[in-house]
Amino acid sequence: MIVTIVYIQIKEPYIPDFIDATLFNHRHSVEEYGNLRFDFLQDADDPTKFVLYEAYESPRAAADHKLTAHYKTWCKLVDPWMAVPRKGVKYEVVAPLSPDKW
Amino acid sequence: MIVTIVYIQIKEPYIPDFIDATLFNHRHSVEEYGNLRFDFLQDADDPTKFVLYEAYESPRAAADHKLTAHYKTWCKLVDPWMAVPRKGVKYEVVAPLSPDKW
Repeated sequence: MIVTIVYIQIKEPYIPDFIDATLFNHRHSVEEYGNLRFDFLQDADDPTKFVLYEAYESPRAAADHKLTAHYKTWCKLVDPWMAVPRKGVKYEVVAPLSPDKW
Repeated sequence: MIVTIVYIQIKEPYIPDFIDATLFNHRHSVEEYGNLRFDFLQDADDPTKFVLYEAYESPRAAADHKLTAHYKTWCKLVDPWMAVPRKGVKYEVVAPLSPDKW
């Protein structure tokens, strides 16, 4: 299992557009083979900041996400709305290790 | 629903002790009323860095976590092992909103 946490900051006028585009990406990403979670979060203290919490069964499944049409469409749409470049940090899972907990 | 992402950096010699203490905290936290997730992750590029991904049904349930014996024991054990003070960031959930997806 592998988790990528993606940190995103959006220029304020584009927040509603970003949310719509990312809900589209979320809906399709959770249907990918090997996806375990794709949580979409907004910072409680700064509404311009967002997090994607992307859990996949394997590094291969995580890499395959970037080949999907919905990911490519999302990048093309949202990248111009970002206040700073988005940043992904990769994590190994310590717990829970049981696949049925994901 | 509310998610808190806790960022932790541990002094290197204490990494095994920190993992054991946090597995104990994890096992008890996932049994709390109102807990949805309590994922324990290790940075893939820097093994001194960890993340706790704590999802609760309500801000009240998240606050109640800090009153539990296992949380208090964990703090007392692990705080001296931290390279820098731990930092928690609170997030609202944009998706998924359906409780059965948590």
